[in-house]
Amino acid sequence: MIYTVTFNPSLDYIMRLHTFQPNGVNRTYDDFIVAGGKGINVSIVLRHLGHDNTALGFIAGFTGDEIIRQVKQEGCKEAFVRLKTGTSRINVKLKSQGETEINAQGPTITEEDVATLYQQLDSLVDGDILILSGSIPKGLPNTMYRQIMERLQTRKIQIIVDATQDLLMNVLAYKPFLIKPNHHELESVFNTTFETEEDIIKAARQLQAKGARNVLVSRAGDGAILLDEHGQVRTKKVPQGTLVNSVGSGDSMVAGFLAGYLESKGDYDKALAMGVAAGSASAFQEWLANRADIEALL
Amino acid sequence: MIYTVTFNPSLDYIMRLHTFQPNGVNRTYDDFIVAGGKGINVSIVLRHLGHDNTALGFIAGFTGDEIIRQVKQEGCKEAFVRLKTGTSRINVKLKSQGETEINAQGPTITEEDVATLYQQLDSLVDGDILILSGSIPKGLPNTMYRQIMERLQTRKIQIIVDATQDLLMNVLAYKPFLIKPNHHELESVFNTTFETEEDIIKAARQLQAKGARNVLVSRAGDGAILLDEHGQVRTKKVPQGTLVNSVGSGDSMVAGFLAGYLESKGDYDKALAMGVAAGSASAFQEWLANRADIEALL
Repeated sequence: MIYTVTFNPSLDYIMRLHTFQPNGVNRTYDDFIVAGGKGINVSIVLRHLGHDNTALGFIAGFTGDEIIRQVKQEGCKEAFVRLKTGTSRINVKLKSQGETEINAQGPTITEEDVATLYQQLDSLVDGDILILSGSIPKGLPNTMYRQIMERLQTRKIQIIVDATQDLLMNVLAYKPFLIKPNHHELESVFNTTFETEEDIIKAARQLQAKGARNVLVSRAGDGAILLDEHGQVRTKKVPQGTLVNSVGSGDSMVAGFLAGYLESKGDYDKALAMGVAAGSASAFQEWLANRADIEALL
Repeated sequence: MIYTVTFNPSLDYIMRLHTFQPNGVNRTYDDFIVAGGKGINVSIVLRHLGHDNTALGFIAGFTGDEIIRQVKQEGCKEAFVRLKTGTSRINVKLKSQGETEINAQGPTITEEDVATLYQQLDSLVDGDILILSGSIPKGLPNTMYRQIMERLQTRKIQIIVDATQDLLMNVLAYKPFLIKPNHHELESVFNTTFETEEDIIKAARQLQAKGARNVLVSRAGDGAILLDEHGQVRTKKVPQGTLVNSVGSGDSMVAGFLAGYLESKGDYDKALAMGVAAGSASAFQEWLANRADIEALL
């Protein structure tokens, strides 16, 4: 089974306005609300690609109930830990001439809640795949993903980590199957800016030297670079298309890469191609892409 | 029984930010979500003041379920019509240096849904009080409140209308017990600006001449002016205090006025005093005031 973990899921509330006036009263001409959070996005796109999976993480309150309803409606399994207090956050995405995001904090996760997640992870078995995506709410240590990998290290579980900064760096020693920083996140890790593809590859090699098996660097409109576990560098340009909504594009790339890897039984060119197609397909439409959208870009 | 009607209830999502950056990614330091909508606010403040009442109107989806949960948690009765499709709206209130509101559209109400509300209103009996508050969603006629009053005219029901423009003007012939425009709304009705208290009183007299029994004009920090059904003008200044949140202040004034009127058995000075105290108490705190907050300002 494939599992995704989202520590701080959200409802993403997309509000479209003809014009947006700060310090005024505005009215939308269109709005909708969808389950969000990086792990959940990965789960949904995997399911769109035909891969069963279970979404794990923490939810609370009536917004949490709605997140679960939507995740199940998409055909994913779920085993979220229900927090006793608080409300899963609603993140607001205002779209007018520009795009404005207002992200909320989310509920407090207690040690007891984390212990419940650990019990769930103890049931994972050899051959399972685990995807750890996104940030960790304040109050929890930035070694959280490392602790999870440490706990699972005796089992043959392939772990994908899509996180930034310390949360990412802390896991490398435990040899994650894949990490997928975007190029800005990679620059942030190295506290520098990259001028050339060679700079990016050099940085990716350093992360591989620290333990990451595969390093996939997404570069928005410039495509993606994969440094695979055999040390080989593969690049893929993005297909032509118009950016409609970049939210969930990176998560779609993770899902596409994994689906391509599994379906080709380990062909990294095919994994990379499927990853870039999935990321692009989601970026070219309102929300997360379906299999047909993705295959049209292969 | 007292009934309130809210055609387009909302969840009001209050998001606090240290600074707000349009076209950027922002993060709240505090956020909470409360049931909103003018009739619902009146219901809650009436209940805070010890007056049982039933909230009517239209709700939809998971946000509608949460609105109902909160209304019941406040001790109000409810008999909302559940719409078959759509989702009750979430209105976003951003609070940083300034205040920015983003209001959504809300679900579509069909003729069949309105017919269900009419059936509920048919069960009202002599002595009941009905409060019609707020705007009507697009797609419904601006004679909606008038149609309701027309339907109920054979019964001895006191009807309060808190609405603007045509929605308000259309009801006057049916002799509402009370209307409560704020002074800006009154200016808008007469398409002018008022310089003096006399201007406001003159305008109120014109609305009374068209049929309104009592005209209560709220003037924010300048207090309120009541032109009562005996033709007498009464004024009340606001108590000292700091504005914290003006949302729901006018609705609190309606609830306070009605509670004061009922408790004093028709003493308009007491009704006005309670109305101004309730409006101020809600404006001086985060959300709708309790009885103790209101009495402290009498």
